[in-house]
Amino acid sequence: MLAKVFVTLREGVLDPQGKAIHHATTTIGYQGITEIRQGKYFEITFDDSLDKAQAQEQLEKLAHDVLSNPVIEDYEIQLSAD
Amino acid sequence: MLAKVFVTLREGVLDPQGKAIHHATTTIGYQGITEIRQGKYFEITFDDSLDKAQAQEQLEKLAHDVLSNPVIEDYEIQLSAD
Repeated sequence: MLAKVFVTLREGVLDPQGKAIHHATTTIGYQGITEIRQGKYFEITFDDSLDKAQAQEQLEKLAHDVLSNPVIEDYEIQLSAD
Repeated sequence: MLAKVFVTLREGVLDPQGKAIHHATTTIGYQGITEIRQGKYFEITFDDSLDKAQAQEQLEKLAHDVLSNPVIEDYEIQLSAD
């Protein structure tokens, strides 16, 4: 089973890295971009010892406790069947 | 318009950061995880001066030239209407 986890900074939390990328893009001529925010992305492969519900549970815990900092970050989870 | 860009290491490219996270998860008791790979995630907001085709074009160029290193990384783009 393949799972995807997206971690993004919460709204209102400053994102200097995203701001730097945005600044760079305007400097080199990109137009029409209002904002760029950078987050993290994880691909997690589960073996067949877990069913989907168990994998989902592990994944929620993993995303909350390990992959993100809930004080300043939000996360989103996608668990696919294959 | 909101666009999402996912940048992942190409298959076969070593991902020490993902390996370290995977190792940490097994150490603290997570089970059934075969692999974790870390990538990057960007949210890009376009203003209304661009139509969808123009935004898509800018986005392709941005993802290829700025946000990823095509030698070792793949990228995926999602452009939504809102």
